[in-house]
Amino acid sequence: MKFVCSKQDLVEAVTIVQKAVMAKATLPILEGIYIEAGDKVKLVGNCFDLGIEYNLQADDIEAGSIVVNSRIFGDIVRRLPDSEVFIQVKDNFVVSIECLNSYFEIKGLSAEGYPMLPEIDEESKIVISQNTLRDMIRKTIYAISDDENRRILTGSLMEAADGDFSVVSLDGFRLAYAKTIIKEDVSFKAVIPGKNLNEIQKILETTDKEIKITLSKNQALFEMDNCRVISSLLDGEYMNYRSFIPEQYETVIEVNVREITEGIERASLITSDDKRFPVKLNIADNKLLITTNAEVGASKEEIEVEMDGNDLTIGFNPRYLLDSLKVIDDENIVISFSSSIGPSVIKPVSGDKYLFMVLPVRMSN
Amino acid sequence: MKFVCSKQDLVEAVTIVQKAVMAKATLPILEGIYIEAGDKVKLVGNCFDLGIEYNLQADDIEAGSIVVNSRIFGDIVRRLPDSEVFIQVKDNFVVSIECLNSYFEIKGLSAEGYPMLPEIDEESKIVISQNTLRDMIRKTIYAISDDENRRILTGSLMEAADGDFSVVSLDGFRLAYAKTIIKEDVSFKAVIPGKNLNEIQKILETTDKEIKITLSKNQALFEMDNCRVISSLLDGEYMNYRSFIPEQYETVIEVNVREITEGIERASLITSDDKRFPVKLNIADNKLLITTNAEVGASKEEIEVEMDGNDLTIGFNPRYLLDSLKVIDDENIVISFSSSIGPSVIKPVSGDKYLFMVLPVRMSN
Repeated sequence: MKFVCSKQDLVEAVTIVQKAVMAKATLPILEGIYIEAGDKVKLVGNCFDLGIEYNLQADDIEAGSIVVNSRIFGDIVRRLPDSEVFIQVKDNFVVSIECLNSYFEIKGLSAEGYPMLPEIDEESKIVISQNTLRDMIRKTIYAISDDENRRILTGSLMEAADGDFSVVSLDGFRLAYAKTIIKEDVSFKAVIPGKNLNEIQKILETTDKEIKITLSKNQALFEMDNCRVISSLLDGEYMNYRSFIPEQYETVIEVNVREITEGIERASLITSDDKRFPVKLNIADNKLLITTNAEVGASKEEIEVEMDGNDLTIGFNPRYLLDSLKVIDDENIVISFSSSIGPSVIKPVSGDKYLFMVLPVRMSN
Repeated sequence: MKFVCSKQDLVEAVTIVQKAVMAKATLPILEGIYIEAGDKVKLVGNCFDLGIEYNLQADDIEAGSIVVNSRIFGDIVRRLPDSEVFIQVKDNFVVSIECLNSYFEIKGLSAEGYPMLPEIDEESKIVISQNTLRDMIRKTIYAISDDENRRILTGSLMEAADGDFSVVSLDGFRLAYAKTIIKEDVSFKAVIPGKNLNEIQKILETTDKEIKITLSKNQALFEMDNCRVISSLLDGEYMNYRSFIPEQYETVIEVNVREITEGIERASLITSDDKRFPVKLNIADNKLLITTNAEVGASKEEIEVEMDGNDLTIGFNPRYLLDSLKVIDDENIVISFSSSIGPSVIKPVSGDKYLFMVLPVRMSN
């Protein structure tokens, strides 16, 4: 095997496929990157839960395949000068890496026995922009549960139906939902593990370029220009989250996102995650008063809002509110409070691109 | 006590004095920042080894003093809106912090019993620019030993003599020396603890503004515009480091700093701090060949140099070479090798602003 490629392209390929390589594995081959040169050069990382294949732009290709240790190969490639890189497999699986005046030889492994990525039946496919998927994952990933006893909640539900594509996460305390419109008339439901979504989010570029999402029975396939990502799915039925969202609200406010975020951030300095001391919101006279009262001290913050409905006092764990507020890019939002003990809902001023639901904390007085 | 100041100024003052406040102390007052308002407002942090006093620009001052918890006060101040901040001490040592629509109250402590900074006799004083001191600390701090059994080496020697001011650090394997010219005809020697130098380095601005360094018997005083830093000294006699520096060299090369740094960085990927596999330098025919040969693989790198003297083969722990190379801003340097088993010295192409000495590693073959 032999090929020439640019250092920059090789670094990008290695960085992306490394996300699917185990750092520690019982078999050395599983700590490796699979490299195959044929008509083109393909790099693969595969930890079974997640597999990534990257097509690298290369020249002077001589066919063959090899597996190289991911950490050592990655460290070397990243440190090479910005120039053309010559990769060649020599006798005894030794791989040489040459770039300007730098020359490396590392021990490779036979590609035989490397677990290849599964083929995916193209059952249901949708196409959206990378930007859109990236934003939808960002808006929902924080609400994924880390409770391994309810495994289904350690992933996000991706659902296509009626011309909508949505991503939903929830744990016991809050729910995050993001939606976009699709052209395809398909219908599917699948729960993608949170740690895979985290890696996919990093691979997605800030670009309007397309990404194809294909759902089969046991896998989801995400296809970009040079890169295919295959994720396992979580087994089981996802909760019927729509039934949790209240339909009637006692109080509704429109508020500036930056003002309420900074206000709650400051208030949270006093409570600092101590569940005994929630952040208290007081809504009256078109004013939102944020107060705290804890052992170390007290705080008070006043923000102008537009309100509709009754005066209301409600307590929150500040972290739960902040997690939602921090993924919102709009200037203003609408917060709807079902009651001082029921769930509250954060939505855009117009449209329904996202919805965040947070449960309040009961206050002692 | 009462005063008004800008949020930015207060953040800077708190950030600087916090460097001398203990994160955990048996007495709560030692986890605090001392604030005193009189003609001006003064903030103090003091952990005995290191004391910092900062003069804050303030208005509407009402005299008084208080101690506030450093962490809580710092967190709040940093999160305030960018505006004027009103600080006031109320009954029972409660401190109120007010800024636009934000209002905080935190519990303070009586300033009585706070350990004030010692007065320093102005015995020997020199004045240099903050930039110069910052660069001298940066060039030498990495070679400070962390061996508590040889405590004197856990600090840097600051020495004034014959119109020169120098800073020196050394551990068992390398030595770092930086020098500047001073106008003062003073002579002193003092060893400043490494961790204090680390904090001082962060406080120093990238500016030509002056810093006064005053040495007394037990303390060193560093005075900047708004800020006084008092450091303890390490007891004992510093090693006579000058006697270690060889006077005769077998081989001398002039080499590009970036080229040799990147070459050794790449080579070190193969040896990765494994003492059994040093980086080997081969000097011959105006070429420097950097090679490694370890279990995971091998590397080879060739760099053009200008050489003087004999051909030479020598081994190094790459980290020791890199630590020195990374603090050099010059384009080229001169490396002088006393022999393949004696110390090597890195110096500027002209002048003597710095000198780094590294011991080689004996190679098995």
